[in-house]
Amino acid sequence: MLRGAGVAAATAALAAPALADSNLPEVKWRLTSSFPKSLDAIYGAAEYFAKRVSILSEGKFQIRVFAAGEIVPGLQALDAVQNGTVECCHTAAYYYVGKDPTFAFDTAMPFGLNTRQQNAWVYHGGGLELMREFYQSYNVTSFLFSHTGAQMGGWYRKEIKTPEDLQGLKMRIGGFAGQVLAKLGAVPQQIAGGDIYPALEKGTIDAAEWVGPYDDQKLGFNKIAPYYYYPGWWEGGAALSLYVNLKAWEGLPELYKQIIQSATAETLDWSLAKYDTSNPKALRELVAGGTKLQPFPPAVMEACFNAANQLYAETSAANPRFKKVFDQWSAFRREQVLWFRVSEQTFDNFMARQSAQSRL
Amino acid sequence: MLRGAGVAAATAALAAPALADSNLPEVKWRLTSSFPKSLDAIYGAAEYFAKRVSILSEGKFQIRVFAAGEIVPGLQALDAVQNGTVECCHTAAYYYVGKDPTFAFDTAMPFGLNTRQQNAWVYHGGGLELMREFYQSYNVTSFLFSHTGAQMGGWYRKEIKTPEDLQGLKMRIGGFAGQVLAKLGAVPQQIAGGDIYPALEKGTIDAAEWVGPYDDQKLGFNKIAPYYYYPGWWEGGAALSLYVNLKAWEGLPELYKQIIQSATAETLDWSLAKYDTSNPKALRELVAGGTKLQPFPPAVMEACFNAANQLYAETSAANPRFKKVFDQWSAFRREQVLWFRVSEQTFDNFMARQSAQSRL
Repeated sequence: MLRGAGVAAATAALAAPALADSNLPEVKWRLTSSFPKSLDAIYGAAEYFAKRVSILSEGKFQIRVFAAGEIVPGLQALDAVQNGTVECCHTAAYYYVGKDPTFAFDTAMPFGLNTRQQNAWVYHGGGLELMREFYQSYNVTSFLFSHTGAQMGGWYRKEIKTPEDLQGLKMRIGGFAGQVLAKLGAVPQQIAGGDIYPALEKGTIDAAEWVGPYDDQKLGFNKIAPYYYYPGWWEGGAALSLYVNLKAWEGLPELYKQIIQSATAETLDWSLAKYDTSNPKALRELVAGGTKLQPFPPAVMEACFNAANQLYAETSAANPRFKKVFDQWSAFRREQVLWFRVSEQTFDNFMARQSAQSRL
Repeated sequence: MLRGAGVAAATAALAAPALADSNLPEVKWRLTSSFPKSLDAIYGAAEYFAKRVSILSEGKFQIRVFAAGEIVPGLQALDAVQNGTVECCHTAAYYYVGKDPTFAFDTAMPFGLNTRQQNAWVYHGGGLELMREFYQSYNVTSFLFSHTGAQMGGWYRKEIKTPEDLQGLKMRIGGFAGQVLAKLGAVPQQIAGGDIYPALEKGTIDAAEWVGPYDDQKLGFNKIAPYYYYPGWWEGGAALSLYVNLKAWEGLPELYKQIIQSATAETLDWSLAKYDTSNPKALRELVAGGTKLQPFPPAVMEACFNAANQLYAETSAANPRFKKVFDQWSAFRREQVLWFRVSEQTFDNFMARQSAQSRL
């Protein structure tokens, strides 16, 4: 009798401890990360995920995490999953915009969705279905896996005062944003996290963006570039993906598929909260150490926004896969930004003013 | 050999389907919700959670969800868990500020944390540990369970032009905010969701806040009050809780405890994305139907902010449990708001300006 069961009765029935389920098969997977071990917030998300999967399967489903370069380089994680070298990877979809710019929707689009809006799009806004359909031809399925929040605009050796200062700028920048900057004369480069510092130090590049204060401080960019700009308009919320090889996915017992779904969602919360709690202290330390923190000038933001819109129009005209997602996504963005302007941002901006007046 | 195992080999080993684990005990719990079934985003979160728990336990751990009033009224959910009538509930911690204002930290504090910041505080900022310590004397443990995002400021029969217009205002308002408004002469009332409409219709109250456009439209407040204000400064992000009776919790097999942890985190993502995708359309329809949408005047916001600070000082002086959490929480809030002012809000405000200029 369900209605009649009180807590005391229910707990009495549970005296026997759970035993490991001998019917569930042992599964061992390898996950290749696009990130180095030193970045505990982003690399650590995959380790957290693997731990949760192991716990929820009572140790039967083990996922071993490998750092970028241990099996394949960071920017080849998708390829390793696609061809079955490993079963899954933790990566940024927009690393693969060279294959197809449609990848960018799954991480962040320039002047795109913020973190909350990206989650809304993926979970209830049709985004997951659109992206999984797109991914089929790459032999993978995907899960929203981790978040960084709105990223910073990166580290620059020289000040950026006008859009003209972008001309000839050799910059490490992730994803589709490189093509936006190229329209303004910059020379974008895609370089995996662990390789950025030497390139910036040697002067191979003039500027580099990575994530935000917590990671950037670990990578030491402040030692070799004085200007730290915000916001990273190309990733108002950067969502990282778990890719799973389709054949490996289809071979999983149903329970393990469900465990992956729950563990990825849990990892998403874990990772974003990790960044949000870690960034403030790192930013304070960077600024105390002499970093020059400044916003991009309005004219630079405007020029980049216009260049992004131009790129979207051109890409939509040339690529029907991109257009299909863009049309749905841009209508979603319009509605989301309109709604966030009401309560969400009015609240945040009021609190920001209290902060600026040292009233918190 | 882990390294040597390719995808084909791994999937071959998985041909046998998973069988139900005969070693895991059958557990049946009841969850009482503080919310009516008609509100599918907030009530639906508990149903989603129960479904995930069932799936992850292969049907062995069943949680049956009851709407407000089916077992106990919406505002007595905590009591029902505390005394063992049910094993768990989905509720807003701040419904219980009459017992102790410390409850409010777990849902939302006036001029407190936004949704992201609340998650950060709970998951990595020490909040979960502080709240669970506090909850011990109520015989429950807690999980961050669902979110609404920043709420609206509610429905008013008359315009609120100055702080003086709050004097004598009989208003349904959740949580600690009622005490803030009382300092400005308002007469706050705590009324469960399903009972607000008749009170506002009959004129027992002059104003009522609930959640946001999606829920408020369902409850029909627009039919009986023309003014819809924002932001809900008392809940810049409202986190709902799962309370679990301590004895029921301790009696659970370890696997089921872990399943609850993962399923609550997954429910959190589901619920927030559900609100974020549902609110824009509802707000459009409300405004198209004649609702007068407007921000609280700056003088009203300022007066409420000052009253909140006064209340915090008084409560901290009188209540050491409150003070312990407040001191930690307010330092956390200070750092979070400072950090969010940088990249996050600069990005959001730029996008808001493009929206205001119809450029999205």
